[in-house]
Amino acid sequence: MPRVALGLAYDGASWQGWQTQPGGLTVQDTLEAALGRFLAHPVPTICAGRTDTGVHALEQVVHVDTSAQREPESWVRGLNALLPSSVAVQWVCPVDNGFHARFSALSRTYVYIVRQARVRSPMAHGRMGWVYRPLELEPMRHAAARLIGEHDFSAFRSSQCQAASPVRTLHALDIHQRRECFVFVFRANAFLHHMVRNLMGALLYIGQGRHEPAWVDMLLRQRDRRLSAPTFSPAGLYLASVEYPAHFGLPSASLDELLESHMLPGIRAGR
Amino acid sequence: MPRVALGLAYDGASWQGWQTQPGGLTVQDTLEAALGRFLAHPVPTICAGRTDTGVHALEQVVHVDTSAQREPESWVRGLNALLPSSVAVQWVCPVDNGFHARFSALSRTYVYIVRQARVRSPMAHGRMGWVYRPLELEPMRHAAARLIGEHDFSAFRSSQCQAASPVRTLHALDIHQRRECFVFVFRANAFLHHMVRNLMGALLYIGQGRHEPAWVDMLLRQRDRRLSAPTFSPAGLYLASVEYPAHFGLPSASLDELLESHMLPGIRAGR
Repeated sequence: MPRVALGLAYDGASWQGWQTQPGGLTVQDTLEAALGRFLAHPVPTICAGRTDTGVHALEQVVHVDTSAQREPESWVRGLNALLPSSVAVQWVCPVDNGFHARFSALSRTYVYIVRQARVRSPMAHGRMGWVYRPLELEPMRHAAARLIGEHDFSAFRSSQCQAASPVRTLHALDIHQRRECFVFVFRANAFLHHMVRNLMGALLYIGQGRHEPAWVDMLLRQRDRRLSAPTFSPAGLYLASVEYPAHFGLPSASLDELLESHMLPGIRAGR
Repeated sequence: MPRVALGLAYDGASWQGWQTQPGGLTVQDTLEAALGRFLAHPVPTICAGRTDTGVHALEQVVHVDTSAQREPESWVRGLNALLPSSVAVQWVCPVDNGFHARFSALSRTYVYIVRQARVRSPMAHGRMGWVYRPLELEPMRHAAARLIGEHDFSAFRSSQCQAASPVRTLHALDIHQRRECFVFVFRANAFLHHMVRNLMGALLYIGQGRHEPAWVDMLLRQRDRRLSAPTFSPAGLYLASVEYPAHFGLPSASLDELLESHMLPGIRAGR
């Protein structure tokens, strides 16, 4: 059966994460219900990254198999008419059957956005993390540099993590500041359960001067979740993009284009 | 009794506008309930601009009279602990009794944010207007220039408007584009009911090429609401700031600072 890939954006605040559950209040349940109505047959979905409750996506990638013949534009419009305002298909692309949303992915890029301000903002609520105390950029950047590479990330792994190995390769961890807004960009081959939120907890402790950047070396070495900082809020966490080999021909936007097209702070230099 | 001014931000999507109603689902009801608990006496409020259902505020200005003695920081923290996540006091400032939130205001600045994109964004939902068709900036700017000044705005006034006169002075109507995002800045001595949303409807018709910029001259001349474009959505409308004489000593931030501190697209030149 022909295979189709979808790029999906959602506001995670409305949903109990990606993965289907008996209550049906997940993004997967909602998408499969819309697909079932649109294609008039049940359609199982496979995604690139199973986001948790409250976590957003700018471009989650999903694949489905169907013999239905539709133009990409008809897919996008038809599905979006059936989806609630908190979920929207961004693009649809036919792919060959060798493509698998999860296993073909080379890496995932998550973005965490933190607003550092004395007073909370109703407009930023649910879309950014919030810290009251001042944050220093440079110590967080020094810590980030120590986290890049292949490591045993046990100190940053939730006790419910089901991954076979705690070893992951963090390709990039860039931090951009724009006024009171800090944008953290994480790219890795894959992530452990709560890994980004746990890393955020530790980075913010360092940014607030509660620990030196070298603290993360100790945490990586000790491999003990209890020694690290608390798991930070899901409010500012976005599955921003998933990277695949170019020959699959999926649409690709720059991270900056993705962030700004969803009205989030961009990261271009000099801004 | 001493008088205190408050700067208030809110996400209007959660509320049936500013003004108190029997159901109690308005910003004023919520603020007065929090003030009553914080000060332990009933506290009537006067605001600068009575926003409609769904309309947001970055810095609505409100004044109250109370003999309670509190530090400004204690006001801000105390009230925000009692307010829901969709409403937050940004600052509190003692003022002399000659200050009146509504009658002392020299002008109000409203901002309308429109996202022009092929596909809707869940993250922008409720925070920006959305147009599917391409928008041309220059024709909208030409039309805006024709609207500036003192005019009879009957063509842009809702049938429920209770103002004594349809004449208003539009001091500024600037339009900024940043990628797919258009930020419209309206500053006037005061606004008629639905005036910004009705002006937006007409400007977007012009931006989409459905009318020439000179169409607004005809609308102003004819003074007939039925000849103009439909009222545009409240989703992208923000009461951004209220301007007062400097001697009252209220805090003042630039419009760009206000927008960016609430994680909305800024308007600085060259961006």
